[in-house]
Amino acid sequence: MANAHKYVYLFSEGNGSMRELLGGKGANLAEMTNLGMPVPQGFTVTTEACTQYYNDGRQINDDIQAQIYEYLGKMEEICGKKFADPENPLLVSVRSGARASMPGMMDTILNLGLNDTVVEGLAKFTDNPRFAYDSYRRFIQMFSDVVMELTKKRFEEIIDEVKAEKGVTQDIDLDTDDMKRLVVLFKEFYKKEKGEDFPQDPKVQLMEAVKAVFRSWDNPRANVYRRMNEIPYDWGTAVNVQSMVFGNSGSNSGTGVAFTRNPATGEKALFGEYLINAQGEDVVAGVRTPSPISKLHEEMPEVYDQFAAIANRLEQHYKDMQDMEFTIENGKLYMLQTRNGKRTAAAALKVAVDLVDEGMIDEQTAVCRVEPKQLDSLLHPQFDPEALKKAAVIGKGLAASPGAACGRVVFTAEDAKEWHDRGEKVILVRLETSPEDIEGMQVAQGILTVRGGMTSHAAVVARGMGTCCVSGCGEIVVDYDAKQFTLGGNTYHEGDWISLNGSTGNIYGEAIPTVPADPGSGYFGRLMGWADKYRQLKVYTNADTPRDAAQGRAFGAQGIGLCRTEHMFFEGERIKAMREMIVSDNTEDRKKALAKILPYQQGDFEGIYEAMEGLPVVIRFLDPPLHEFLPTKEEDIAEIAQEMGLTVEKLHNVISSLHEFNPMMGHRGCRLAVSYPEIAEMQTTAVINAAINVQKKHPDWTMVPEIMIPLVGEVKELKFVKDVVVKTADALIAASGLDMKYEVGTMIEIPRAALTADEIAKEAQFFSFGTNDLTQMTFGFSRDDAGKFLNAYYEHKIYESDPFAHLDQNGVGRLVKMAAKLGREARPDIHLGICGEHGGDPTSVEFCHGAGLDYVSCSPYRVPIARLAAAQAAIKNPRK
Amino acid sequence: MANAHKYVYLFSEGNGSMRELLGGKGANLAEMTNLGMPVPQGFTVTTEACTQYYNDGRQINDDIQAQIYEYLGKMEEICGKKFADPENPLLVSVRSGARASMPGMMDTILNLGLNDTVVEGLAKFTDNPRFAYDSYRRFIQMFSDVVMELTKKRFEEIIDEVKAEKGVTQDIDLDTDDMKRLVVLFKEFYKKEKGEDFPQDPKVQLMEAVKAVFRSWDNPRANVYRRMNEIPYDWGTAVNVQSMVFGNSGSNSGTGVAFTRNPATGEKALFGEYLINAQGEDVVAGVRTPSPISKLHEEMPEVYDQFAAIANRLEQHYKDMQDMEFTIENGKLYMLQTRNGKRTAAAALKVAVDLVDEGMIDEQTAVCRVEPKQLDSLLHPQFDPEALKKAAVIGKGLAASPGAACGRVVFTAEDAKEWHDRGEKVILVRLETSPEDIEGMQVAQGILTVRGGMTSHAAVVARGMGTCCVSGCGEIVVDYDAKQFTLGGNTYHEGDWISLNGSTGNIYGEAIPTVPADPGSGYFGRLMGWADKYRQLKVYTNADTPRDAAQGRAFGAQGIGLCRTEHMFFEGERIKAMREMIVSDNTEDRKKALAKILPYQQGDFEGIYEAMEGLPVVIRFLDPPLHEFLPTKEEDIAEIAQEMGLTVEKLHNVISSLHEFNPMMGHRGCRLAVSYPEIAEMQTTAVINAAINVQKKHPDWTMVPEIMIPLVGEVKELKFVKDVVVKTADALIAASGLDMKYEVGTMIEIPRAALTADEIAKEAQFFSFGTNDLTQMTFGFSRDDAGKFLNAYYEHKIYESDPFAHLDQNGVGRLVKMAAKLGREARPDIHLGICGEHGGDPTSVEFCHGAGLDYVSCSPYRVPIARLAAAQAAIKNPRK
Repeated sequence: MANAHKYVYLFSEGNGSMRELLGGKGANLAEMTNLGMPVPQGFTVTTEACTQYYNDGRQINDDIQAQIYEYLGKMEEICGKKFADPENPLLVSVRSGARASMPGMMDTILNLGLNDTVVEGLAKFTDNPRFAYDSYRRFIQMFSDVVMELTKKRFEEIIDEVKAEKGVTQDIDLDTDDMKRLVVLFKEFYKKEKGEDFPQDPKVQLMEAVKAVFRSWDNPRANVYRRMNEIPYDWGTAVNVQSMVFGNSGSNSGTGVAFTRNPATGEKALFGEYLINAQGEDVVAGVRTPSPISKLHEEMPEVYDQFAAIANRLEQHYKDMQDMEFTIENGKLYMLQTRNGKRTAAAALKVAVDLVDEGMIDEQTAVCRVEPKQLDSLLHPQFDPEALKKAAVIGKGLAASPGAACGRVVFTAEDAKEWHDRGEKVILVRLETSPEDIEGMQVAQGILTVRGGMTSHAAVVARGMGTCCVSGCGEIVVDYDAKQFTLGGNTYHEGDWISLNGSTGNIYGEAIPTVPADPGSGYFGRLMGWADKYRQLKVYTNADTPRDAAQGRAFGAQGIGLCRTEHMFFEGERIKAMREMIVSDNTEDRKKALAKILPYQQGDFEGIYEAMEGLPVVIRFLDPPLHEFLPTKEEDIAEIAQEMGLTVEKLHNVISSLHEFNPMMGHRGCRLAVSYPEIAEMQTTAVINAAINVQKKHPDWTMVPEIMIPLVGEVKELKFVKDVVVKTADALIAASGLDMKYEVGTMIEIPRAALTADEIAKEAQFFSFGTNDLTQMTFGFSRDDAGKFLNAYYEHKIYESDPFAHLDQNGVGRLVKMAAKLGREARPDIHLGICGEHGGDPTSVEFCHGAGLDYVSCSPYRVPIARLAAAQAAIKNPRK
Repeated sequence: MANAHKYVYLFSEGNGSMRELLGGKGANLAEMTNLGMPVPQGFTVTTEACTQYYNDGRQINDDIQAQIYEYLGKMEEICGKKFADPENPLLVSVRSGARASMPGMMDTILNLGLNDTVVEGLAKFTDNPRFAYDSYRRFIQMFSDVVMELTKKRFEEIIDEVKAEKGVTQDIDLDTDDMKRLVVLFKEFYKKEKGEDFPQDPKVQLMEAVKAVFRSWDNPRANVYRRMNEIPYDWGTAVNVQSMVFGNSGSNSGTGVAFTRNPATGEKALFGEYLINAQGEDVVAGVRTPSPISKLHEEMPEVYDQFAAIANRLEQHYKDMQDMEFTIENGKLYMLQTRNGKRTAAAALKVAVDLVDEGMIDEQTAVCRVEPKQLDSLLHPQFDPEALKKAAVIGKGLAASPGAACGRVVFTAEDAKEWHDRGEKVILVRLETSPEDIEGMQVAQGILTVRGGMTSHAAVVARGMGTCCVSGCGEIVVDYDAKQFTLGGNTYHEGDWISLNGSTGNIYGEAIPTVPADPGSGYFGRLMGWADKYRQLKVYTNADTPRDAAQGRAFGAQGIGLCRTEHMFFEGERIKAMREMIVSDNTEDRKKALAKILPYQQGDFEGIYEAMEGLPVVIRFLDPPLHEFLPTKEEDIAEIAQEMGLTVEKLHNVISSLHEFNPMMGHRGCRLAVSYPEIAEMQTTAVINAAINVQKKHPDWTMVPEIMIPLVGEVKELKFVKDVVVKTADALIAASGLDMKYEVGTMIEIPRAALTADEIAKEAQFFSFGTNDLTQMTFGFSRDDAGKFLNAYYEHKIYESDPFAHLDQNGVGRLVKMAAKLGREARPDIHLGICGEHGGDPTSVEFCHGAGLDYVSCSPYRVPIARLAAAQAAIKNPRK
């Protein structure tokens, strides 16, 4: 035993730096213990024990069991109470605690240690038999649900039956005998279901509870949460076994949660809420609406002052805003948890900047304190102020998560997903949300709940996701069966449009148009200023229109990394000319059709160049297969054939001649320009003429058009298209009398291009990694089809995150690094960038920083995210 | 000038080792000159000049022009004749000559130097005005066609008109005046078409002709030939300018071609044919049927003896069978060319083995003397001897290229392609073939010509391709317009079945079934024995049935490298059960359906194991997407739905739920086993039970089943499926009481698998490179769709060969080498093989040898090819 690996730590043995081993909760409980704060004592079973549990085939091995019992003994000594001792019983809570906070995702068991004998002792000892039996029935209920996986529903029905017999409606109306009766009924149900008595040995209860917590690491909602938050599966969770204190032991008791600063706004003031005579689960579940923390000052001034002092000390200690749980047992304060508080983007910005101003942290630390993804919520559209003026408020709830949302009413997470999947924007309306609802919450524009406060499940999760949420609007009456709710005298049915303002709590019974956000200056401006000071990657935007270009610049883009030209071909006369080109069976006719497209395209480019005021603009030549421009429905084919003066048969022939078995790997990208060089010729003419015109209009700008050839897999292919570009461009520039430079580069999106990047770099002045296609080809699965099997892959932990959302560093990343190295060796001044959707994903941006790229390019709304992520990457691992 | 790069060599300045610079023809002319043989003198313009011509934008630069004229001067001195000298004019031939022989692919101009004055001189000097004017009209015709690209057809029409006016049908019936008339008419036509007089300055004629030869390097048929024969485009061609000798200057003159051994059988005896009073083009074109070389012994015994002595000396000198062109001018022998002769596979084997027996070469040299691809013709089916007995011979031609062919009659190369593309086997029937027909010849089962001898275009090309050919069957009357031919009193129409025996020349008016070839022992056996002695790669076969397995073994396969299991699912009851499985919406039903398939699959494996008698067998698990097993036609869907007791709607739903946008990158390979582990379970059961049964029956064999998981891209994916396999297999083996080992490995066919091969090797006991898919993913184009654009790529020289036929060493090859290296580092005893179609391609086999793989696996008929290619690779670059 002496040499055994240590799997269990008393709180007094750990400290705040041991987060990987003890989990966040365990490490902070240890730290608070070391700081001499009033923490109910106990021990932590390490994350390594969890990993061992899974390695042992989901069994807690004898060694770990022995250590747990050994530490239980130590805990009994420290607490001066004993398990199963009716005189002064030790009761414990068993809680999960992972390295990263995963609120509500895993399981918790309270009041463990109660049995038929102990409950009697507790009743005597506390002189509160109702409390004792209420605690016991809660424990049976929770243990049955969490540990034994019996359905919760039957227990609630039993309570309802007992209340009905007695003719009451509130739990509070049940007396001691009723509680005893519930205990009997619950145990009967347990025996019927499980075929054995409810376990009376607290040690058995404890080991089963630890197992249940380990097991809950792998439950579906935890898996979804981890995938959303990029938490690796192999981290595992620790388990904290802590002596119970009872917030539900009378009117001099209570429980609450509080933040050192306002998690919605960042305002520096204690912020939180509490419930008298309640256990923690009551606050989090949002069943009763709690009082604001300020009221505690009135109700229990001494406790409040003690708490406020502790809160202040914790913030000073951790140098960050703290989120704390506390319980008051018979007038005595206990700290159950502290952690860095989750906060809205606005609050994150204000807190980070304030902490710098308060001298607590430096700029770099501040930059690293804001989660880049969070900025998203600041950048998305807000209600159009004019439309908002005319809209009538139909109700008001708590402003639980900021932002503006507008969507159609749905009542279940499943419906939310289903409607979303068919392209609808939805608002999820629930009495209250629970972790089972997480996927529905993820796809909703906004969340509206009837019950629950600012720290209810709905509020916490919505803020984490940056989704608008209005919670605790108690006036709403929901009828799930009829799929409708009433508010302010009106009834709203499934599918009706409503709007929510998560920053004010206002609810509107109609759709209100939204306008782009203006994160503007202030905290955002100061923090982003620091980010720009420290980052080493440039950030460009993907933009196909002057409007997108302007939006990108407003968000700080330093250029356009990807201007797709095909989207320009879909409107009105353009698509007609495009179709004419496609049905042409000779070069002459194709050229005639292309000549019609040229002025549109040139005009588009001029607009974009004007918007970018001389900043770099990388224009990608036509990429999609031509059949995408042709109709597919029979009636459209007939109509368009007539419009074009073709027989339906002829148009059918063209369409079927363009049919492809695997269009993703078909006749597209530069392959089109190899087959039809006249397309590249026209596009070059449009780019160069636009640049010439803009250059002439703005002699102070230095126009250097950058032309990007897509889907290159072989240097000769690039050379062929480049020759067409150069010949066309040189002639136009010579004729213009200007001394304009231009560049020709390529996408690296085919594995072979990455593998032969040394050769390709001889012809390419820049590389832009098209990581969407590169991911598809490297994995060998098409994004459109992978949905059918990727769920099984997540389920079996084969992939932990979507490789289209986060760049696969192990596979695709190796290709990117290889190509960057080969490219630089062959052409030291080559520019390297990325323009796939990964360009706006923080972990992928970090990878690009590490891989030595020059820039990332992403959609306008993700530009600030990329700027911040780039800064954090540079602060963590500066280049050179 | 003194310091200029040397672009021109007199024959006397070069030698046989300068093939790269002078081309094959030029080097050998130089070598024969050095050997003191009677060679008409001249000079060679180098392949470097050709490359320079293309680099200069298809212009011969001043430097090269000056050198050509300088060497023309030297040549005039050597020959004692002068360009444009009516007294004793120098006339020359201008011929292409690439590093590798490309017979008939590029252009030749004869009689250059003639003009209106010189022709008069020639008439006087030779005292043969008809000859002089015939030569002149031929020159105008050839120069106009080859150099000026005027259509040949009009010249033939003019000849026909002159003959018609005169009331004769044969060229021979035209006299001197007629020839003069033709010259006038030809020049008139030339002037009309070109807007200028036919060039009278021989120096201008010469430079234009050299240019035309350079240009012809890039003509479409040369490009096709090079792609077929893997000759790099950048080699370029040399140009040989040689003093003319005239085989058409009377009955004491002639021209011919001959081999030192029989190119069809390898028999050691002079073999060839000649024409009296003819130019070389007459022999090659096959317009007149020539006499066998043995007849020359009677007609001109001295010339014959001199030629035989030279032939013998050349064979001794080159230590290989020679193919020679000669001309006799007024009784004097001139050697125009010698080269290593093209030969049939049978002849190649015999010549190689005989040369060893004659002590001229060693075994390794002999092994390298046979083109591996050629063996193909020996290995393909022959006529079923029983059926052949009953078949009636309807005609007989020359046995120009051996083998048996059976197909439907077509009359043009275009039709041959078209019919072939829709899955028909065709026999191409032509009066004579020309280089324009090459693509049609390539797809035909056999070629039948009316005119031409053993060295006609049809015969030479067919032998090179290993395609059966019967040539010179003069009894056939072809009517191209009616698309029919008559032979032996019967008429055969397009689409009728006929059969050819290229080894006997027999023609049959019906389809004759074929049986597998038996290359057996003899020369094949001895040479392959040497090959096996020297090769270092093992050769396995791809086989899905006991029959294929047996065929592979008969051809020397040392195991099965790829046994696909899906083909087993398509017959009768199996496909029904497969469909039942696919429409199941739960695991239980799927298991029931799989249980029906199990006995079939197990039986298949037992059969294959029996056939392989304990040799390694690598079985690949289910690979294609499930929709491939469902019907697509509306009537089939209705029928099958009824059969399965489903509504048509339900079956439609299943089909549409399985629809994929890019099936190649969809739900297939191990992704199926991840979604439905019960499939892997069933397949494992079938493999292991089969191995157990066969092991029990044959205790002396050591059965080690090898299970291959396809389409792996990530080690965890492989681990998941492997866990299913191991669990199932271990239980079965334990129950059997045997101590049987088995292996689990993977295909490397997804780029990511190659990139992460170090991780994958931790779980894989072997890698098999699936280079078909790996090529698709690495290039990012699907084999099914690439046809639409690859022609443009060949045309623009972006790709010179089909990457699906020859492994792309630069891109895909880098991945293979990387994966082999990473795999070996992680697991030193890993087995590495290749099972894509490249496994039977000689250049790809050479690559695999160099990459250090353990084996290649290919279709049974390619096994001997792979054995020989592996031996040649090992002889050229031995490993270790």
